[in-house]
Amino acid sequence: MKRTMIKEKEDVKLKNSILIEGLPGLGMVGKIAIQYLVKQLKAKKFAYLYSPHFPYYVLVNKKGGVRLLHGFLYYWKNELGANDLILLTGDGQAQTIEGQYEVAYRLLDFAKGKGSSLVVTLGGYVEESEGAPKVLIASTSRELLEKAVKAGVAISPPGNPIVGMAGLLVGMAPFKGMEALCLLGRTKGYVPDPKAAKEVLEALCKLLSLRVDLSKMDVEIERAERMLDRMKQIAYKRELYLERMKREERVKMSYIS
Amino acid sequence: MKRTMIKEKEDVKLKNSILIEGLPGLGMVGKIAIQYLVKQLKAKKFAYLYSPHFPYYVLVNKKGGVRLLHGFLYYWKNELGANDLILLTGDGQAQTIEGQYEVAYRLLDFAKGKGSSLVVTLGGYVEESEGAPKVLIASTSRELLEKAVKAGVAISPPGNPIVGMAGLLVGMAPFKGMEALCLLGRTKGYVPDPKAAKEVLEALCKLLSLRVDLSKMDVEIERAERMLDRMKQIAYKRELYLERMKREERVKMSYIS
Amino acid sequence: MKRTMIKEKEDVKLKNSILIEGLPGLGMVGKIAIQYLVKQLKAKKFAYLYSPHFPYYVLVNKKGGVRLLHGFLYYWKNELGANDLILLTGDGQAQTIEGQYEVAYRLLDFAKGKGSSLVVTLGGYVEESEGAPKVLIASTSRELLEKAVKAGVAISPPGNPIVGMAGLLVGMAPFKGMEALCLLGRTKGYVPDPKAAKEVLEALCKLLSLRVDLSKMDVEIERAERMLDRMKQIAYKRELYLERMKREERVKMSYIS
Amino acid sequence: MKRTMIKEKEDVKLKNSILIEGLPGLGMVGKIAIQYLVKQLKAKKFAYLYSPHFPYYVLVNKKGGVRLLHGFLYYWKNELGANDLILLTGDGQAQTIEGQYEVAYRLLDFAKGKGSSLVVTLGGYVEESEGAPKVLIASTSRELLEKAVKAGVAISPPGNPIVGMAGLLVGMAPFKGMEALCLLGRTKGYVPDPKAAKEVLEALCKLLSLRVDLSKMDVEIERAERMLDRMKQIAYKRELYLERMKREERVKMSYIS
Repeated sequence: MKRTMIKEKEDVKLKNSILIEGLPGLGMVGKIAIQYLVKQLKAKKFAYLYSPHFPYYVLVNKKGGVRLLHGFLYYWKNELGANDLILLTGDGQAQTIEGQYEVAYRLLDFAKGKGSSLVVTLGGYVEESEGAPKVLIASTSRELLEKAVKAGVAISPPGNPIVGMAGLLVGMAPFKGMEALCLLGRTKGYVPDPKAAKEVLEALCKLLSLRVDLSKMDVEIERAERMLDRMKQIAYKRELYLERMKREERVKMSYIS
Repeated sequence: MKRTMIKEKEDVKLKNSILIEGLPGLGMVGKIAIQYLVKQLKAKKFAYLYSPHFPYYVLVNKKGGVRLLHGFLYYWKNELGANDLILLTGDGQAQTIEGQYEVAYRLLDFAKGKGSSLVVTLGGYVEESEGAPKVLIASTSRELLEKAVKAGVAISPPGNPIVGMAGLLVGMAPFKGMEALCLLGRTKGYVPDPKAAKEVLEALCKLLSLRVDLSKMDVEIERAERMLDRMKQIAYKRELYLERMKREERVKMSYIS
Repeated sequence: MKRTMIKEKEDVKLKNSILIEGLPGLGMVGKIAIQYLVKQLKAKKFAYLYSPHFPYYVLVNKKGGVRLLHGFLYYWKNELGANDLILLTGDGQAQTIEGQYEVAYRLLDFAKGKGSSLVVTLGGYVEESEGAPKVLIASTSRELLEKAVKAGVAISPPGNPIVGMAGLLVGMAPFKGMEALCLLGRTKGYVPDPKAAKEVLEALCKLLSLRVDLSKMDVEIERAERMLDRMKQIAYKRELYLERMKREERVKMSYIS
Repeated sequence: MKRTMIKEKEDVKLKNSILIEGLPGLGMVGKIAIQYLVKQLKAKKFAYLYSPHFPYYVLVNKKGGVRLLHGFLYYWKNELGANDLILLTGDGQAQTIEGQYEVAYRLLDFAKGKGSSLVVTLGGYVEESEGAPKVLIASTSRELLEKAVKAGVAISPPGNPIVGMAGLLVGMAPFKGMEALCLLGRTKGYVPDPKAAKEVLEALCKLLSLRVDLSKMDVEIERAERMLDRMKQIAYKRELYLERMKREERVKMSYIS
């Protein structure tokens, strides 16, 4: 595996598809949103994205199975509306600058091949102030920005850097002749934030005229709040574990013989 | 996008063109100088430079539009003189060693293709002492150095490292059979310094026999001084924001599941 | 040398071979296990793995000879059983993300070419608690996991990251149509741990129905304990040495003229 | 410039040439030794080595000229003896792992093309103790090691890592069917050390049966001692300067607009 690649389990034909991305990032806003959409829409997994720029470890699942870190692509056939959806989430993001550009480019290429002319990225932006907008939009298209304003979504202030896939997919979409927009939910950022994800999904549904029942998000929000303490502890423990591994690594190097 | 590339909006024919570079760097001297030249000469934007070695985020503009970080190329047709100009500035510099060399090489290739045989880079050098020369020159050409001395520009002391594009473009120009020179304005370096940019532009105009009204720089210098405090605050806030994002990033990694 | 490569001293034909990997890692568990297998089975060295992603230094052996860091591949012809073995260990691991993926891919490609359909990786996992399982398994195959459970090997808990070659070889094996499993011995991790290596070998022998006399491991375990103090001192000294070299490096840069 | 390359000013035919390398490293031992050989033997510069893996800055010379960092290759025709020499020194070393391997490989390829079957690298090893050997040897060849012992050169203790070009050229020489040896002079490492360079040259001359007048080294040693204090001050100042540039760089990033 020398290059980022997308493996299709099924060759799906899609109608005016829209690619919607939500990878791990600030407050896990994008990933939570995509996972919820997948569940509610019963979207089907049809492709995997692998990259030699992802972190070099694997994860173990509940049954002892092993998974190389990757992205997941789902499709949803929109029986009533004009646009089918491609939903993307995954285990992580590319770890190098060149990797970030390569993954973004590969994804746009894939979506283009599936007939997409619009890319939507979902993420978080960090802001403590309660008065700040709950969702911000930035886009390559004036029409989309105007539509967003009408739908009550605030336009991102200038100078705001959008880091990683959520930014690069939007910035590079015009290279492929595609429009793109990014929705950023306000979050404190340091823990998974389903509240911000719900806000982002509400904005998304308005903009794309999607009908998705978001009420079950509230259950997730409550559960998230209960799990928060427990997760913090796990995160802390894992951090310690990784720190330790790094320390061992340094010591080990000295035993090479 | 696997490689650095230059996209032309317009295929411009230029006469004995000179490439003048001023990317973000110490005191923003080069960028401020190029921006001023573009405005005064009413130079026209005709090409963009993109690179997978630029930072992996995008910027939002005043209207909510999204911009992938890139370089901007302008041309100016010199009706009265011998040399048309290509003016280059941009959002940032390549983030890796190999990226720096690749971008420099690509730019020289492009300028050569546009008939340039001379490359000029503008930047800053850090020096607190008020007695030090206001502008230093270094060059691949003895004739240019002699001309500079006659024009009252001091020659750079030996051993002085010139970092990034301002250095590499000069160092690599001979590979393409081109001459090159670098003008460095004395700056304290930590804030945008239009004073240093004006000094550099004065030296540039003398050396290239350009007639550019630099008086409007004084307005910018005053404004810069007034804005200084405000900018420092913004810079500080953004630094905090980025610091925070990094911290979140580390915590997030622990939630991958 | 632009790419990772495997140099064969001898073109060996193998019967349903299994690749077993144990590179330097936590507690040196994998490397110690492979070195013991090589000795006990009198396996023969037949190939070397070189990579431009390994650390950029060489090691000096007892007679003043110089060795580029590399991986060693041994084969063992299994006269009585169904599967010949390819045993892999080495001086270190790739130092970059892309290097890790490249080395893993190259190894799987090689093993596939030698007729392997199963890959086993050996390593350590850090756990202080004496109550935790002595060996954990994770695998791409349900059958292998079930077999492991019957053999008394505990299944790895979910979320556990397996870092480096021990993880990537397992995660990437399915790309080559191969099955794979990873055995991790419990270790404190910061010193070579032949005890953990013995536990891992016991599990391995059960799972692969291998007959290897492990009694001589006890000698190594005792010796390891005696050597521990001495090794800690050497490690410490070498650490200091490397630290110092880095410091010099920085100073040296200033003398470039 | 995408790859490391060697540019020849002159196509020189050499007789059983030996490549002798001395790039900046611990105590500048290798570089000082090569510079002395070049002067004493009146060796002629005939080729340059450039690499996109070198640091991304340029240096200014005494007359304001600009130099891309590079390696210098000199040849010396040995009228009386069997082997012509290729002497290599330079401004610095590759900054990335892959770059180190690429530069070493390119150099061996070049030397092979010039008929070399032996490579010698010169460097320093850090050791405070006055009782330690003044020069250590490590080699790919038993004969050379035996010859060294007879000439009174101590064999390097095992486990000693030889970092950078001095190590990689020796470790990779066998890939090109070449023999190689490394001579390391004992140094404290943190300042240019012509004393250690002289010791290394004495060993080199014995091993290669070269006749070079080393008496003028003493002048350099004295001068070095006098210059020491002054150089330390310059090094310190430059360090501060680079530190500062890095700090500015961070601040500058905040002004991107």
